[in-house]
Amino acid sequence: MKASGVSGIKVEGHRLARDIEEIAAFTEVDPQVGFSRPTFSPSWRRARDYVAGEARKAGCAVRIDAAGNLHARPSALGWQQKVWLCGSHVDSVPTGGRFDGVTGVVVALEVLRAAPDALMELIVFAEEEGTTFNLGMLGSRAWAGMSGVDQLRTLRNREGLDYLAAGAAHGVDPTRLETERFDPAAYHGLIEAHVEQGPALWNAGIPVAVVTAIAGRRQYSCALTGEANHAGATAMTDRRDALAGAAQVVVTLEALGRAQDKTAGHTVLTVGRLEVQPNAVNVIPGRVSFTVDYRARSNEALADGDLQVRKLVQEIARSRELALEISCTEELPAVPLDPGVCERLREAAWRLELELPETVSGALHDTAILAPLLPAAMLFIASRGGISHNPGEFSRIDDIACAARIVAEAVCR
Amino acid sequence: MKASGVSGIKVEGHRLARDIEEIAAFTEVDPQVGFSRPTFSPSWRRARDYVAGEARKAGCAVRIDAAGNLHARPSALGWQQKVWLCGSHVDSVPTGGRFDGVTGVVVALEVLRAAPDALMELIVFAEEEGTTFNLGMLGSRAWAGMSGVDQLRTLRNREGLDYLAAGAAHGVDPTRLETERFDPAAYHGLIEAHVEQGPALWNAGIPVAVVTAIAGRRQYSCALTGEANHAGATAMTDRRDALAGAAQVVVTLEALGRAQDKTAGHTVLTVGRLEVQPNAVNVIPGRVSFTVDYRARSNEALADGDLQVRKLVQEIARSRELALEISCTEELPAVPLDPGVCERLREAAWRLELELPETVSGALHDTAILAPLLPAAMLFIASRGGISHNPGEFSRIDDIACAARIVAEAVCR
Repeated sequence: MKASGVSGIKVEGHRLARDIEEIAAFTEVDPQVGFSRPTFSPSWRRARDYVAGEARKAGCAVRIDAAGNLHARPSALGWQQKVWLCGSHVDSVPTGGRFDGVTGVVVALEVLRAAPDALMELIVFAEEEGTTFNLGMLGSRAWAGMSGVDQLRTLRNREGLDYLAAGAAHGVDPTRLETERFDPAAYHGLIEAHVEQGPALWNAGIPVAVVTAIAGRRQYSCALTGEANHAGATAMTDRRDALAGAAQVVVTLEALGRAQDKTAGHTVLTVGRLEVQPNAVNVIPGRVSFTVDYRARSNEALADGDLQVRKLVQEIARSRELALEISCTEELPAVPLDPGVCERLREAAWRLELELPETVSGALHDTAILAPLLPAAMLFIASRGGISHNPGEFSRIDDIACAARIVAEAVCR
Repeated sequence: MKASGVSGIKVEGHRLARDIEEIAAFTEVDPQVGFSRPTFSPSWRRARDYVAGEARKAGCAVRIDAAGNLHARPSALGWQQKVWLCGSHVDSVPTGGRFDGVTGVVVALEVLRAAPDALMELIVFAEEEGTTFNLGMLGSRAWAGMSGVDQLRTLRNREGLDYLAAGAAHGVDPTRLETERFDPAAYHGLIEAHVEQGPALWNAGIPVAVVTAIAGRRQYSCALTGEANHAGATAMTDRRDALAGAAQVVVTLEALGRAQDKTAGHTVLTVGRLEVQPNAVNVIPGRVSFTVDYRARSNEALADGDLQVRKLVQEIARSRELALEISCTEELPAVPLDPGVCERLREAAWRLELELPETVSGALHDTAILAPLLPAAMLFIASRGGISHNPGEFSRIDDIACAARIVAEAVCR
């Protein structure tokens, strides 16, 4: 009962493998330690330039928008024709892996090579991870007009440069942000391929799945302040130890995350960053700052969890006589993806004789920013052991090629 | 029934107050944040130079020994005469207070000014805190021959310089270490005045007390390694979160310290330093390194506690499938101080119509290094609120002057 795939499209795994290795070689740190491409770093730029070069070789026109995102589409189409948008990002977390973001970019690149008449535009979003400028998906936010010039001027990297200053040499231009803003009418929709970054597909033997929703996320910045004091001369009963308080918070939030995951499903709670002052072997810590990252599949769960997180942290601070600062630094709602685009992907897979099960994304992606404005969906590719944000990250080239075939099939009809 | 004090000794509080303020002005960071004098830093050197200058003004000869410690004694005595040794240190923890170490140095300085014929040598020990080269009381260890050239070459500061290289410009000279080694026969004994750094004396209204023993200390360097992974896509049940494990260790060790303090008395357990990798908001921590500082008044308690600390940390690592590294980086036994010197101080106080209660030191001091080799004792001066290693550190000038009078009385008889 199956229809045949679009004829003439030849997705080549060896080209995908080469792209991934070429991009992996652009890293700010030794590959033994991991792959680091902070947004606007030399390695990040070389990775973006590589993609631009390969797209040009495939007959594409290339441009950088005012937010620093790269666009490439077959020259013959011109920039006005309505097309599908497809891509992901090449920036990485510190010491990350080869596949996160890069996979979705090389899938789009391979579609452009394998199907030169595809009605498709490749996009490389800038600063997806949020580990360079402390706000995730900044390239898509800036393009969509959600992050304006004022915000881009306040977000700074470790060198103290804001997004506009650091990005100026890479195409970021505040004077063109308004005129070049994302126009939903210019696109049929968005398809982002990405590695799953969790173990579910790999463990179930599923190469590729369609993502029907993205979990929402809240991030918090917290600090506990007690009293720095001599570790030898201050009795256990006389201490206001900020690290002991923060440790209790970490353990308590872990338990809350586990409990909510059991009852509501798809909940994660993470303290990923923690810094101690003065951080000396013989001094009771006086101040500890840390972040909380909280994700759930529904907005109701997020709102309920917000109250619980605040209550638990406040109780610990109060019982230890620690001063508490807590602020929500990011609030992203859960995002349902477009049933029409999901169906289009399922039909494309069916024509290729591939099964395409459904899943939910626990991680956020640029798709979460654009999906409220444009019909959008994602493809997830199995991640070995679910390992991600880690140099041990691995996905099979065959699975990535499978995703590329589905995308090509979907955008060529 | 009291005997009269030595006539003609005029300890002046205003000179002590000025010394403390002058030395406080030498800091690597803003005094609003605290006082930072890492060993061999420009501020540390200016503090040592200030002490040398004041000692010369008081008629002293000054020399720096091969380990970087400063010595000053009345010129008339010559360097061969047997005298009392009295002093402390001017290096500080990061963002420490005005009084730690400095108090014992200015007490000795004031004795040299108030009693020009005192049979006393002032000493400023280098690197007492251990926060610059990661090993406490390094100046006294090196002088006493406990830390040799090989060890001094392996201990490095944050700039990566070892003790010998960093100290070369400040008098450290490995070729003279052997010939200038501390000779117990050259001294009657050691008296170190120091702020208590705990709240006991202040709360009891006691200005000065004699210290009859110093608690022992063990320090550990630990690391837990799990798996860095995506904070959104990795289910709570699929994590090996190194920070969650370390947090459980911190909370568990705090409970152990509290329990032992209740049963055995005078026990403290501190995690003062903790570092997270990769330390990003959206990445599950893959590795956390931290220190443990453990002190107890008896060697039996320390040995028993060592077993318990290791067992608890191992259990947590095992239950969370984290790799554990733990090594004991320092093992200092509890040190009884000399009853004869303690009695001499009590008699001096009695002649001055001062009461001199007894206490135990929870903190380590250079005295702990020299006490096994030389009759030694300490005077503790009340610390307001017990606050130390913190810019809020405070002791009364009247109490410090009181300690100076006792020392002068003790070394002039």
